[in-house]
This record gives sequence, C-alpha cells and structure tokens, in this order.
Amino acid sequence: MPIAANGKALLSQSAGTLGQAIGITLGPLPANDMFVLFTDFGLQGPYTGQMKAVLNQMAPSVPAIDLFADAPVGNPKASAYLLAAYAEWFAAGTIFLCVVDPGVGGTRPPVIVEADGRWYVGPGNGLFELVQRRAATMRSWDIKWKPERLSASFHGRDLFAPVAAMLAQGEPPPGQPHQDGAHRRTDWPDDLCEIVYIDHFGNAMTGLRAVTLQRESRLVVAGRVLECAGTFSDRPPGMAFWYENSNGLAEIAVNQGRADRELGLAIGIPIEIVA
Amino acid sequence: MPIAANGKALLSQSAGTLGQAIGITLGPLPANDMFVLFTDFGLQGPYTGQMKAVLNQMAPSVPAIDLFADAPVGNPKASAYLLAAYAEWFAAGTIFLCVVDPGVGGTRPPVIVEADGRWYVGPGNGLFELVQRRAATMRSWDIKWKPERLSASFHGRDLFAPVAAMLAQGEPPPGQPHQDGAHRRTDWPDDLCEIVYIDHFGNAMTGLRAVTLQRESRLVVAGRVLECAGTFSDRPPGMAFWYENSNGLAEIAVNQGRADRELGLAIGIPIEIVA
Amino acid sequence: MPIAANGKALLSQSAGTLGQAIGITLGPLPANDMFVLFTDFGLQGPYTGQMKAVLNQMAPSVPAIDLFADAPVGNPKASAYLLAAYAEWFAAGTIFLCVVDPGVGGTRPPVIVEADGRWYVGPGNGLFELVQRRAATMRSWDIKWKPERLSASFHGRDLFAPVAAMLAQGEPPPGQPHQDGAHRRTDWPDDLCEIVYIDHFGNAMTGLRAVTLQRESRLVVAGRVLECAGTFSDRPPGMAFWYENSNGLAEIAVNQGRADRELGLAIGIPIEIVA
Repeated sequence: MPIAANGKALLSQSAGTLGQAIGITLGPLPANDMFVLFTDFGLQGPYTGQMKAVLNQMAPSVPAIDLFADAPVGNPKASAYLLAAYAEWFAAGTIFLCVVDPGVGGTRPPVIVEADGRWYVGPGNGLFELVQRRAATMRSWDIKWKPERLSASFHGRDLFAPVAAMLAQGEPPPGQPHQDGAHRRTDWPDDLCEIVYIDHFGNAMTGLRAVTLQRESRLVVAGRVLECAGTFSDRPPGMAFWYENSNGLAEIAVNQGRADRELGLAIGIPIEIVA
Repeated sequence: MPIAANGKALLSQSAGTLGQAIGITLGPLPANDMFVLFTDFGLQGPYTGQMKAVLNQMAPSVPAIDLFADAPVGNPKASAYLLAAYAEWFAAGTIFLCVVDPGVGGTRPPVIVEADGRWYVGPGNGLFELVQRRAATMRSWDIKWKPERLSASFHGRDLFAPVAAMLAQGEPPPGQPHQDGAHRRTDWPDDLCEIVYIDHFGNAMTGLRAVTLQRESRLVVAGRVLECAGTFSDRPPGMAFWYENSNGLAEIAVNQGRADRELGLAIGIPIEIVA
Repeated sequence: MPIAANGKALLSQSAGTLGQAIGITLGPLPANDMFVLFTDFGLQGPYTGQMKAVLNQMAPSVPAIDLFADAPVGNPKASAYLLAAYAEWFAAGTIFLCVVDPGVGGTRPPVIVEADGRWYVGPGNGLFELVQRRAATMRSWDIKWKPERLSASFHGRDLFAPVAAMLAQGEPPPGQPHQDGAHRRTDWPDDLCEIVYIDHFGNAMTGLRAVTLQRESRLVVAGRVLECAGTFSDRPPGMAFWYENSNGLAEIAVNQGRADRELGLAIGIPIEIVA
C-alpha cells in the first residue's frame, strides 16, 4: 500500500472493514449494492470496459469498482490469496466479478460462490478457494445459464458479467447448487509463502496473513533476511523489511525505495519464515 | 482477449453483440444511453478524467465506459480498424467519443458520424472510415459549434466531449451535414494487413476480420508462418497461432506465452495471408 | 496534452475552465458535486478502487473522476504545482481527494482546505501550498475526526475518503480551523523550474505557468535550449520546443516524437529560463 518513501510510524494494527472505515455499522441494513472487479485484464484495453458495459446495461443503478485489474496474470492460485485478503474488507452484499482464467474455454466450470454474504462469480479454477475456506458460511453453484452467444475467449464479458448482473437484480443464482467439496483445492495451503502482487510503489505483497506471523518472525526472500518493522523511520534509507499492510497481508518494502527492483522480487518468488 | 496461457477448446464461432451477450433483444427498445471512450490518451493522466468531467457535468445520468485508452498512439488508420471491430458490439444509441488526433489544431475537421444508429464524435482524419464503410446506413456532419474557449491542444475536452454530451441530451447534431464522400479515405483497404493492437496479455490483434479468412489460411508475420487454431490445447506450449478473437478480429497468440515478446510483434508490423 | 505527432497550429491562448469548456455559466448555480482524485496510487491496483468504494458507500450520488493517478510518486512538492494548474479548471464545489503522502503515519497533519470554493482533503505536507497561495479566498482545517479503524499505511482510504464524503454530504468540515500560516511552505517558489509530469505521449510538463514567461523566453533543459512554438508545423520533425499546454503550464514536446526519450527528461529535472 501507499507506504512511505520516507514514512514514519507504521502501526501494527490490522485493517478494518469498509463498514469500519466509513464509521457506520453496516450490520442489519444492507449496504448499497456494488460490483467489484478483480481480473488480470488491465484497464486500458477493451476487456474491463466491455464487462462494465454489460453490467451497466443490465444493472444500471449498481456501481462497478475496479479492485484489481492487474491480478497475477493467468495465476488463479496467487490470485486466490490476494482476493481473499481484499474481499473481506467489503460489505456483505457486494458482488465480486472475478476473472483470472487461463483455462477459458476449457473444462473448468463457471461458478457462483456465496461466502459470508458476499457473492463471487467467475471460473471454478481455485480462484475462490481461500474465500471459501475462510468463510463461516458458504454456498456454491455451477452456472447453468448460457448466453445467446458465447465467445470462445471472453467468458468474463459473455457469461460472468451477465450472471453478476442477474444477482444484483435480485435473481436467484442461475445454476445448480453443488457440494461444498466440489471444485475445491484442498491441497493448497492456508497461507501462501510466495510473492503474490507487486504494487505501484514496488512493494511486494505475500500470500501470508500477518496475523499468522509473530512480530519476531523474519522472512527470507531472494536471499535476504527481513525483520518486521513497526515504523519506516526505524530503518535507514534503503533498508528492506516486512510489515502488515492495510489489508492484513505481510508485505515487503524498502524505506525510500522500490522493493521489487532493489531485492529482485516478482510474483511467484518463494518466501521462507524463520523464527 | 484473455486467452488461455494453458487454455483449451477455443471455438471458432464469432462474437455476438452487447444485446446478445446480455441475453435480451435490444431491437425496438432503446438501450440505456452510454458514452464509450476510444482514445490514445491513457487513463492515469489528466486527459481521460477531464473529458469525463465534461461529460458528467453536461449529461450526468449517462455512464461513460472506457473501451480503449491505449489505441495506437497518433495512428488514426490502425485505430480505425480497431474501432470498427469493437464498436459493432455496442447497442444502437451508444455515443462514441473518439480521439486519436495527431493533427489537433490543424486542418482536419471535427466531425459527427451516425452509422447504423451508433454515434461517433471526433476528428475527421479517417478514424471513422471503416465504421462508415461497413454501415448499412450512415450520415455525417462537420461540427460547427465552438466552445467559449478552445485550447490549442485538447479538443477532446473542449470540443468533442461537449458535442458528445449534447447528443446524449437529445440535441440535434451541432453541425452541417456533409456529403457521404467528404473526409473519406477510400484509398484504405477493407481490412488492414497489420498488427493494430497488443493487449495486456501480449496477444496481437490484426486489422483483419476473421470472416474474410479461411480456416486453412496461414498468416505470415515477422518471418513466422502461423496456422489457425481452434483450440489452444491443440498446440504445444510456446507454439504461436492465429485465432478469431472475441470481437471477430484475427489475433495472434502463443500458447502459454506472450506473442508480442516471443515473435517480436508491434503495432504496424505487416501481415501476409497465404493459402 | 495530446499534442500532435504531426500537429499544426498550436495557439497561444490559455485554457478555460470547466464552465467555459461546456459553454455554460456555472457562477451562481452550484455545479453538480464531483469528487476528483489526485494521487500517486496508480489505477490498476487496489488503492484507487478502495477509496472509490468508500466514496460510493458514503456519497453514492456523487461521481468520482480520476484526474491524476500517476502524480509524482512520493513528491508532494512537484505534485503541488501540477495540482494547482489542473484544479482551477474545475467548478467551485468540486471536492479534491488528494494523496501524495510519503509521510503517511508520520507527523504531517491531515487537512481540509477550501480555496476559491473548491475543497481539498489530504495530507498537510505542502501538497496544497500552491492552491492556497494562488487563491483569492482560502480557509483550512486540521482534521480531528478519526475512523473506527485507521490502518497505518492507507489514510487515503480510512481517513481522507470518508472526510471527502462527509463534505459532499453537506457536513461541516470535521476539524479545527487553523491559521492561514499553518502547514504552509512559504519557502517554495511561485513557479517551479522543474519537470513535474511526463504524460502518456512523452510530453514533459514543467511547474512553470506559461503566463509568467514571454513568448521570446527560451527554456534550457538537459543541455538543450528550447524556443516557444505557436505551431508544431513550424518545427521540423524531431525538433523540440515548449508551448503552453491546455491547462496553462509550459510543456516540452518534440514534433513527431517523445520528448521524454529524445531529450532524456524525467520528473525533477531542472529547467532554466533564458531571455
């Protein structure tokens, strides 16, 4: 997250939720519906825009927010840990349209997941595994609806966006409930010891929730041993460290620098935890 | 389009329209109005935002969708083939605000085009040539309206956006109808044997509509001969091929790779068709 | 600004305002409220989207426009000159949510500024210095409101966005008025002799308002002496020059080229003015 090139005073408290962030209790009252887009499509080209056009035509009163358009390309596993960390910040009722889908046109099923009141539409390729695993309550469906025309390579636009819009319009999930165990990736770990995202500032998010670590834990990445920092100003310029980011992930940063370039980090690079 | 790094089963069926995508017939009923932006401005800097501010102030109820903000920079010819392929997916009544305008401030006229019920506002530099040529019905106007202040270098904000908003508000085109032949580029081909766009995944769109090719056609690009693939999984990893993308263009891709890097592709590189 | 690779006829007239651009007088009537985002967060990752989610939940009827998401990273000084040049184009009543905040979590105060009827929310690190200095009327507040949960590293989402939304809802500034001299950077010049922004086309904006220069003034940058051009076509291809951009800044461009690459320009590079 926008952390300090010459910042100060990082606290270790974890992130709140959208309800807490805006200082109102969203509990009994439904929040305004919202689409949240999580894809590896980029924003500049046609894919995000065409999906938004479908959402807008079918559910014009529901806003669409771009959460990630640069999720790990073609990597549902890394994306799953990123999505789970960021989704829980949003209110119940939010509809996540998620497409990281290297198998588009293949055999992975199109699915709907409801987890702790949030809805997810996208490919059943593990992308929702961590959202499902961490939820107190969870249901899922195989999408059975088919559009009049389904392109071979853009199910986000032709299949997932229309289904997301149907849910926003209050329609029942257009599919068939399936067993909790279907399309699950129980072989994946609860937290992922890898870099899962590099942000605009060069900070590297891991797939590790900071709450699973000790403040004394050190992370080893690309041959470097990093300690936890509570504050940036504890560290001299150029010093790398890890900290708990604003959505609860352990994130690697460099004071007054770009961690990606200075440490040689990229998505998929493994992390090791040492005491 | 988001095609499969390790994808499967690409079908050869062509794309539908927005109406078909959302499973409703848009025919006799007007769709919700929508602005669609097609520019070479990028999204991060001030240009797209300032245009949207004008649209929002003048036509606050009409949503604005980013279709392309990374159209071929300063290249109205390549952009014209890209625009024509993507515009026809949108409903009649859509208003396209299009700015790829290397001659801003020069002698190219500002124009309005109505083609098959879709509206286009932008520079008369050939950008709408293919939209016009492929339309069943078509009209066009030279814009005669002038803003109170017209900057020298940002007609998108000062001239084209206000005119697009006027159209959305139901005003008649603020200009003078011109002859069908005016500002036309009849010297341009019906399909363009060049790369016209590189997407977020490194796939390279050509200016060739796939319907003009045979499944047996091979495309020669950068010294490589590429066959048509119906499915990604037909090809071993690293194999390049062409296929019909989700908006009907012939597109060059590499199974589990980036075609732009692996084949050395860029906008403007010529394509040859061999039987 | 989108200037001409092979453009013509740049005029020297300065830019108008949003009201002038859309040909209506916004004076006595309030414009539609609008949030304008000015950050160094980028658009693709989670930061801009999460801020918009907060704005939308708290003030759903107020649109949010992305003005800059690529303001000079961690550089409030350069950003201050860029913001001041672009803000004055917007109508009174506009609420600017501005985050270029290398000291997040540190001692810089969170502030609200009202200047000539426009509202600004963000860090009190000099980011609003030029907006304040150039305003005819100005007030400011230290933000005293605290969210239920405040992350250490994302005040844009947790603190500034909620406060911006409160203002849009008509609430009084949730803070304490402070003296005009508080948090000011009177040591900064009225215009900044540096590159402050490189746009999508490679044009380099300076922190100099063109009205402070003579048409005969030459700018020296990276060892090159540049003259003012009224028109691109005055110059042969590859020739660099400066001109007044669409928001009144002196901007460096190359006819049919990218000034950043051809002259070796980057944010922070100094400019010298010679007669």
